[in-house]
Amino acid sequence: MPLVPFDEMKQTVKQAFLNAGLSETQADTCAQIHTETSCDGIFSHGLNRVARFVDYVQKGWININAEPVRVKSSGSIEVYDGQRGIGIINALFAVDRAMELAREQGIGLVGMRNTSHWMRGGTYGWRAAKQGFATICWTNTESCMPAWGAKNTRLGNNPYVMAVPMKEEGALILDMAMSQYAYGKLQVTRLNGEKLPFPGGFDKNGNLTDEPGLIEESMRILPTGYWKGSGMAILLDAMAAFLTAGAPTNEIDKIQQGSCTGASQVFMIFDPQHFGGKAFSEDLAASIADYVKSSEPADDNGEVFYPGEREVSRRARYRAEGIPADERVWAEVQRLARA
Amino acid sequence: MPLVPFDEMKQTVKQAFLNAGLSETQADTCAQIHTETSCDGIFSHGLNRVARFVDYVQKGWININAEPVRVKSSGSIEVYDGQRGIGIINALFAVDRAMELAREQGIGLVGMRNTSHWMRGGTYGWRAAKQGFATICWTNTESCMPAWGAKNTRLGNNPYVMAVPMKEEGALILDMAMSQYAYGKLQVTRLNGEKLPFPGGFDKNGNLTDEPGLIEESMRILPTGYWKGSGMAILLDAMAAFLTAGAPTNEIDKIQQGSCTGASQVFMIFDPQHFGGKAFSEDLAASIADYVKSSEPADDNGEVFYPGEREVSRRARYRAEGIPADERVWAEVQRLARA
Repeated sequence: MPLVPFDEMKQTVKQAFLNAGLSETQADTCAQIHTETSCDGIFSHGLNRVARFVDYVQKGWININAEPVRVKSSGSIEVYDGQRGIGIINALFAVDRAMELAREQGIGLVGMRNTSHWMRGGTYGWRAAKQGFATICWTNTESCMPAWGAKNTRLGNNPYVMAVPMKEEGALILDMAMSQYAYGKLQVTRLNGEKLPFPGGFDKNGNLTDEPGLIEESMRILPTGYWKGSGMAILLDAMAAFLTAGAPTNEIDKIQQGSCTGASQVFMIFDPQHFGGKAFSEDLAASIADYVKSSEPADDNGEVFYPGEREVSRRARYRAEGIPADERVWAEVQRLARA
Repeated sequence: MPLVPFDEMKQTVKQAFLNAGLSETQADTCAQIHTETSCDGIFSHGLNRVARFVDYVQKGWININAEPVRVKSSGSIEVYDGQRGIGIINALFAVDRAMELAREQGIGLVGMRNTSHWMRGGTYGWRAAKQGFATICWTNTESCMPAWGAKNTRLGNNPYVMAVPMKEEGALILDMAMSQYAYGKLQVTRLNGEKLPFPGGFDKNGNLTDEPGLIEESMRILPTGYWKGSGMAILLDAMAAFLTAGAPTNEIDKIQQGSCTGASQVFMIFDPQHFGGKAFSEDLAASIADYVKSSEPADDNGEVFYPGEREVSRRARYRAEGIPADERVWAEVQRLARA
């Protein structure tokens, strides 16, 4: 795997986005986010999504000229129609606006409906955490997973993010989809000739399996925690559409313009100054991290991590050493930057 | 199993609570909630918890004379100290207050710290749904589960509730703890000489197992969805303590006065009138329920349910036929009512 310096990756991605018609500011912002995502080790939504985004723009599925339009505003709540604009730009706008509302009122709730793929959900939790805010945000998606007890895909995997800031650069941060594994993980595991660490879905005959190819064939990926992830996916969808007056998964499925086009997203931001204060909240987060870290590891040489810990260490390492990039993916993005 | 009429169960529980020193109003309210919980088929937190609650009161772990004290108030946010009062009474107060705030401002966020066990989390989602509000609420708990990769218990199972109202009595409602199974489920399964439907934890040697007795012995219950439920438990704990300026699990563990004594709880309520409106929201919830229900079942004679569906049908049946009660549990509550 080539190791690509951060700035080289960002500039190449930016040029690919400029070639797709994005403005200087749009291209710079989106390239920064995709590169940061790869730099945190979340390759699937960093460099690996650049070509697909360009494809959506070229197909007209994403409107690069759109800006979010406010449709509701009262107190700490605002709802916007994202007009199928650039998902990252819409989501950054929403989280920044929610931070402004939270600074004034303790909580800011911004709904963004009719938007497009926000790439890595954790981006928005990290962004707020770096400015000292706590976050709950999530998106619904098109269906890609059967409900518990069902065969055909009727649920989105609806990524859900919670973040609580720590001192300096750290955060307790959860970024989880409602499927046990992503299709990307199934593919990578199959291509490596490996099995999944735990069963990840059902084969065509309804048996749980850790063979990724059999699950890709049946499309019966497993909700995380069986019936629990299924139920949570349904409620995240309902609550996202409720709070944005936007489209639920069953409406997104009718759009048929790729992943997350038309999605409904919720951004809740909380300012510690209106709750226990900055020092209390940072000490609290540290005490939780310490408690988890001081667990007795299950394996003799094991280590127990809190959520968000490994992103920070990868971030530092890849900034210094360069960001691992899939060879074919990197070649394709370089081609898009030349085109 | 005896089938006990609703009113008979409620009156017996109420008398047990009166005998423990609760006021007429406290005893009536708590008896109603415990009985409704059993009537929805959630026996573990209905009749089955009555004796334990009485025990906590007798030990002085719950202060039946305490009332919640407001410690913060700004806009749509209020935070209370529950003074280790009766968990149900504190939580009903919080959800009712959050509904008032939501009616005025669209969202109401009430934090309740230093409270005691709220029994079934779903109670508060159902209560708000019946009045047309959507809910996100959760509690942290003492530790009962190891973090992912760890051997010893450092995480609470931190029950999490989301509810979106439907027309009439129904709701989409999720009420999930962060462990794959509760200890109560392990015990019942072991006593029946059965195995769990899916692995529920690790044995002493670190192997995943569906033998409930081996998990009770190791205390290594499995987070739902492996690393995902572990991460979510950590973030729910951090966010609950952040929003209430209350105790996280590592502080609750020092209290050593039974389950959930000193816990931090968050109640977020949303009024559809400030978002898409009542009709939009009800149609939305119905469309999601219909989409799930019209899935192709995995088993030939199977049926796919949306979360909250079966509670409503059990509720109707047990109201008509009587509520199933464990014979020994019912005898014990009757004894407490006579004492």
